[in-house]
Amino acid sequence: MEMAELGATPKGGVNRPALTPTDIEVHVRLAEWARAREFAVEIDAYGNQFMRRSGSESGAGAIASGSHSDTQPTGGRFDGISGVLSAVEALEVIDDAGIETRHPLEAIIWNNEEGTRFSPTNLGSAVYVGSVPIETMLAATDGDDVTMKEAVQNLRDAIPWAGVRELGAPMAAFIESHIEQGPELEAEELDIGVVTAIQGTRKLEVEIIGDEAHAGTTPERMRRDAFVDAVSVASALRELFHDPDDIMRFTIGRFEVSPGALAVVPGHVFFTIDIRHPDNATLARLGDQVEAVCTEAASRCEVRVVETRRADSTPFVGLVPEAVEAASRERGYAYKHMPSGAGHDARYVSEICPSGMVFVPCESGLSHNERENATADDLARGAQVVADTLLILDERL
Amino acid sequence: MEMAELGATPKGGVNRPALTPTDIEVHVRLAEWARAREFAVEIDAYGNQFMRRSGSESGAGAIASGSHSDTQPTGGRFDGISGVLSAVEALEVIDDAGIETRHPLEAIIWNNEEGTRFSPTNLGSAVYVGSVPIETMLAATDGDDVTMKEAVQNLRDAIPWAGVRELGAPMAAFIESHIEQGPELEAEELDIGVVTAIQGTRKLEVEIIGDEAHAGTTPERMRRDAFVDAVSVASALRELFHDPDDIMRFTIGRFEVSPGALAVVPGHVFFTIDIRHPDNATLARLGDQVEAVCTEAASRCEVRVVETRRADSTPFVGLVPEAVEAASRERGYAYKHMPSGAGHDARYVSEICPSGMVFVPCESGLSHNERENATADDLARGAQVVADTLLILDERL
Repeated sequence: MEMAELGATPKGGVNRPALTPTDIEVHVRLAEWARAREFAVEIDAYGNQFMRRSGSESGAGAIASGSHSDTQPTGGRFDGISGVLSAVEALEVIDDAGIETRHPLEAIIWNNEEGTRFSPTNLGSAVYVGSVPIETMLAATDGDDVTMKEAVQNLRDAIPWAGVRELGAPMAAFIESHIEQGPELEAEELDIGVVTAIQGTRKLEVEIIGDEAHAGTTPERMRRDAFVDAVSVASALRELFHDPDDIMRFTIGRFEVSPGALAVVPGHVFFTIDIRHPDNATLARLGDQVEAVCTEAASRCEVRVVETRRADSTPFVGLVPEAVEAASRERGYAYKHMPSGAGHDARYVSEICPSGMVFVPCESGLSHNERENATADDLARGAQVVADTLLILDERL
Repeated sequence: MEMAELGATPKGGVNRPALTPTDIEVHVRLAEWARAREFAVEIDAYGNQFMRRSGSESGAGAIASGSHSDTQPTGGRFDGISGVLSAVEALEVIDDAGIETRHPLEAIIWNNEEGTRFSPTNLGSAVYVGSVPIETMLAATDGDDVTMKEAVQNLRDAIPWAGVRELGAPMAAFIESHIEQGPELEAEELDIGVVTAIQGTRKLEVEIIGDEAHAGTTPERMRRDAFVDAVSVASALRELFHDPDDIMRFTIGRFEVSPGALAVVPGHVFFTIDIRHPDNATLARLGDQVEAVCTEAASRCEVRVVETRRADSTPFVGLVPEAVEAASRERGYAYKHMPSGAGHDARYVSEICPSGMVFVPCESGLSHNERENATADDLARGAQVVADTLLILDERL
C-alpha cells in the first residue's frame, strides 16, 4: 500500500511509468530497505536493480526473484510491484530467520516492463539477457525527448552508492510472482497458480471484400454482403478453435464493418484474430488452418488473411515449477498448474537460467485497470511460496 | 444529357440540390419547352412545378406524371430527372401526334425529393398532399440561412409568367417513372418494372452487453463475449428473415464492436437492423419476433432491442399499375411486377389519387452515386410506357 501511493490516481489505481520520479522513488525506498539489512544493491546499464543477500558458497550464482515496478498509465496497485515486494519480503523473512543459504538470493526490479513511456521500447529483462542491443534501447526517447540513457542516469543519481551490475551476468535460477491477471484462481477458489508456460501466440488480420449495395432495392440472391460472410467466417473459426479442455484462447477483438450505414449492405469487413496456447504444435496446426477455413466459410466474398505476429510458447519445466509446486503443497495451499496468458519478465530470464512463475488470484481477473485488486492474504501466500521456493532451490541446485 | 450538364460533377455525376441556381435552370428550361407548346405552367407555394396540356372535358382532373429534379450532392444523371423528362416527353409526343385527351395531362417537377439542402426537410409531394404543414416547411433553412420560402421566390422570379397552383388541388391519377435503383431488371434482362408497392420498413437497434476481458488470460467458459453472442444473434436473425421468394430485404448495415482492441474480449456490440417488405402483415409478424429471437440467441450477454422507425407499405393497386402493365404488354416489353425498395413521390401522391410507378433498369443497381447509369433505349421504353399509360388512363377514368 505504501508503494501504491507512489503514482496513485484519484480512482485508486497507479500511474507510474518507468523511471519517472515516482518510479525512481520506489527504487530508492527498496534500495534503502536493502541497505538497512546490508544487502548489496546494484544497477545495470538499462536500469534493472538487484538487491542481494550473500550466500555461503563462493562463486555460486544468485537464486533470484522479482518483477517490475512500472505500471500502465491507468494501471493498478499490484501488477508488477507485488512480485517485486514478494521477492523483497522473501529475502527479509529469510534474513529475519537467520537462515544461511549457499547461493546468494536476489530481489530484482526489472525496468520498463509495461513499455509505455519510451519508444522504441523493450523489457528490462529482455535487454539484460541480450535479446536486444543495449545501445538502441538507451537511445529510446519519451514524449519529452528524454532518453532512456538519461532516465537510467537519474536512477543512478538517486542511489549514488549502488554498485554496477554487468548486463547478462549469470543467475542460478529465477522465480517471478505476479497477480494472475485472469479470473481462474479466484473462480476456482485456489490460492496459487503454478505457471507451466507463457502461452505462444499468433495474431492474424482478416479482410472480407464484397460489394456495397442499397438495403432496400438489392435482393438477397444478388448481394455480396461482407457482413453476412464475416459472420459465417467468425462462426467457422469459433468451431475450429473450440477446445473442450478450454486451454485455447481465441478472440476476435476488433471487427470493423464498412461503410457502416443503416441502409447500405456492407461491402467490407476487417477483423483481428488473437490465438494463444501453451502448446506450439497446437498453435501451428490450428493457426495454419485459419486461411482455408475463412475462404471456405465465405460463400460470396473475397477473403484475405495475413499473419501479423507469431511468438512461440515459453515453457517453464523442471526445477523451478517443481519447487513452486512443492512449496505450495507443503504449505497446504490449494493450487493448480496453468499457463500464463500474458507475457512477463520470466519469459526472457528463462533464456539464461531455469525459471518459473507463481500466480496469485486477482479480483475478477481485472488488470491494466485502476480497479485491479488482490487480497493481502493471497499476496502473503504468494510471497511465502517465493520464500520457500528460494530455499528449496538453494538445496536442490 | 442536357439536364445532366446542370450541376455536372468532374466524375460524371450531378450535384443539384433543390432550388439552387442549377436546379432552377432545369425548371426554367422545362417551363420554356412547355410554353413553346402553349402548355400551362404553374408553381405552388412549396415550389412544385406543373406543366399542363389541356383536355377536352371541362372540369376533368389532370392525369399527371413526373418526379423530382434535385439530386444528392454526389448524385447521378438519372435519379429523379429521368422521370420528369419521361413525363415531358410523353406530353410532347402526344401533342406531336395531335391526340386530343378528355383529361388535361400534366408533367410535374416535385420539389426537394432528396431533401439534402434544407432542414427540417420534406418532399414536395408530401407537402402538396398536406401531410406536413406548409408554414414549417417554408421556414426551413439551408447552410447559408436561406429559407425555403426565399428559394421558392427565386424560382418564381425566374419564371415570372408562371401561374399559381393551389397546394392539394385534385388530380385524377399519377404515374411516376424512375430508375430502379436496384439490380433486378438488368440482371433478369427485363425492360420494365411494374411497381406494386413502396415497401414498408422497420428499423431496429440492438445492443449486446457482456464484459470486457483479457484475451490472453480469460478462459472461454468465463467469458461474456459480446461479439460471440452478436454473431449468434445475427445468424438467428438471418434465419428468421430468410425468404425463399427473396422478397424480404434484411440488412445489418452498422455493426460496432467495443472496445475494439486486438487483445480485449469485446464487452459491447451495437448494430442496426433494416427490414423492408411490401406486405405489412409479414413485416409485423417477423419484426415482432426480433427481440425474442435476439434474447434467445444470446447465450451469455444481456440484449436490448429498440425500434427506431416503422412505416407501413404503400400499395399500388388497380387502375394505374394495370395501365402500366397493359402498356408494357402491348409494346412487347419484357416486364415484371416488383415492389420499390426506396421511397418516392408517388408514395405521397397516392394519398389523393390512384397512383403507380414504372421502373426502368439502371446499371448494376448503382444509384445515389456519380457512376449511376441507364441506357437511352431503356429510358425511351419507360417514357413510352408513361405516354401509353396516360392515354389508357384517359380512356378508363
